[in-house]
Amino acid sequence: MKKLVVARNIGFCFGVRRTVEMAERLLSEYGEIYSIGDIVHNPLVMERLKSKGLQVVRTPEEIEGERFIVRSHGIGTGTLDCIQKKGVEVIDATCPSVKKIQSLIKKLDNQKYFIIIIGDKKHPEVIGLKEYGKNTLVFGSRDFSKKVKGLEKAAVIGQTTLSFEEYTKRVRRLTSLPLAREVVIYNTICKVTGERQKEAREISKVVDVVFVLGGRNSSNTAKLYETAGRYNRNVFYIERMKDIEGFSLSGVDSIGIISGTSTSDDFISEVKEYIKKIGYREVQYNDKRTGCRKNA
Amino acid sequence: MKKLVVARNIGFCFGVRRTVEMAERLLSEYGEIYSIGDIVHNPLVMERLKSKGLQVVRTPEEIEGERFIVRSHGIGTGTLDCIQKKGVEVIDATCPSVKKIQSLIKKLDNQKYFIIIIGDKKHPEVIGLKEYGKNTLVFGSRDFSKKVKGLEKAAVIGQTTLSFEEYTKRVRRLTSLPLAREVVIYNTICKVTGERQKEAREISKVVDVVFVLGGRNSSNTAKLYETAGRYNRNVFYIERMKDIEGFSLSGVDSIGIISGTSTSDDFISEVKEYIKKIGYREVQYNDKRTGCRKNA
Repeated sequence: MKKLVVARNIGFCFGVRRTVEMAERLLSEYGEIYSIGDIVHNPLVMERLKSKGLQVVRTPEEIEGERFIVRSHGIGTGTLDCIQKKGVEVIDATCPSVKKIQSLIKKLDNQKYFIIIIGDKKHPEVIGLKEYGKNTLVFGSRDFSKKVKGLEKAAVIGQTTLSFEEYTKRVRRLTSLPLAREVVIYNTICKVTGERQKEAREISKVVDVVFVLGGRNSSNTAKLYETAGRYNRNVFYIERMKDIEGFSLSGVDSIGIISGTSTSDDFISEVKEYIKKIGYREVQYNDKRTGCRKNA
Repeated sequence: MKKLVVARNIGFCFGVRRTVEMAERLLSEYGEIYSIGDIVHNPLVMERLKSKGLQVVRTPEEIEGERFIVRSHGIGTGTLDCIQKKGVEVIDATCPSVKKIQSLIKKLDNQKYFIIIIGDKKHPEVIGLKEYGKNTLVFGSRDFSKKVKGLEKAAVIGQTTLSFEEYTKRVRRLTSLPLAREVVIYNTICKVTGERQKEAREISKVVDVVFVLGGRNSSNTAKLYETAGRYNRNVFYIERMKDIEGFSLSGVDSIGIISGTSTSDDFISEVKEYIKKIGYREVQYNDKRTGCRKNA
């Protein structure tokens, strides 16, 4: 029997679902709303929201409407001030986990900590976080070692969508520098991301082909893709239906599907339906009926 | 010219000097005073203090006098209570750097941190520190990983006499475990130890023979011995004059001397005089006249 193994943790995470639902409610109420950058990193979801009236701009200057939605990744305090000064109403759809880190940075900043952020310096979450403290620095920035030399108190926080392994790997690299007299390391990695990583690993070991559903511009989806690739040679991004429709599945006995946190349930259902229609039976990973075992 | 290169940082450190001076003052005043274990890790110093009336015992039960001195490495709260309940007067000669860590552990304990101590579990400093918090554990103890799993808040502190490199190495090993949501790492390594380590490294590179003056039972002296041995094949412990008097120095052009923090200035002077008498000229490391250079 041909099998379709579906991850347990799939589709929108809590934070993304909340952001998308808020956007949809606002759009149905007001017809138009602005955001800086994509509010979630998924082209399909963004297309749908744009068709309903979401205006995506790059800078506060480009906002020409009355209402602004803060994306799931959060926004810097400087940019926020700028928007509010224009008289634009701001609706905050920041992911609660990111929101928590922003408050943590503020608190640490008041306590005179120098804040080191581990993450991708070009990711909107990190760009936003940097503005919540006066002394913040992304690990790996230019002259990093010089800038953190002789500190009294340093705090380390991580971008929510890093894998826990990656975060600790970088923390280990960081702690090899002569750092501060006091270093506090917060584990700010989102648990949801970790669970998906784990499933990506497990499923990739037991199937012939892995489909990673989600945007290539989504950090956590990209990391699932990478992880799956370590255990399986046949791993493919599926951003849209056409990516899978052109795919030859002859000789493929088992397919695994996993997704990033910004991939909608609708898209997942559509993909699943397509695969089932061509002869695969859906089994959930970890379900006793799957017969999925390591080394199987 | 035959050279004797003397380390800049040599002899008692501030903490040890304070402990020994306190002990001497008390002995000259009262004639007898008790301690549990050696108050400093140096056999020569201990012999002198014992000859003046210091009574070294192993447990509170063995104290038969009226006064007790707390050794430089500090003492656990349990043992302290025990001694005070006997009606014995306690004079605290704990090294101020160790004292600071004891207070830090107490504070962290009140804030519900689980405290991880990096150090030698058999060293009196570590044995003492453990008693200042309810939840303390020495890194590397049996079932360590199991016991620290799923913690909320963990604090890491190090035995003062570790080298900074050794401390960070173990911190890196520690941070590879799935630890707490919040981990605060304190750099409690005594700076004096670090400076001596650095000198041990530099001097060992440029001399024919290295003499490490101090007790083999002194943790920081042992670490200087280890460090020197990494850069020089001719490294020797000198605990007493007889260790050096039997030594053949034919063909030796340069001698380096370094010492742990519990080695007395008197002993160092005696060793220096001996070496100078047999034809070596004293030069201080880093003094321009030494001509000591790396790769020299």
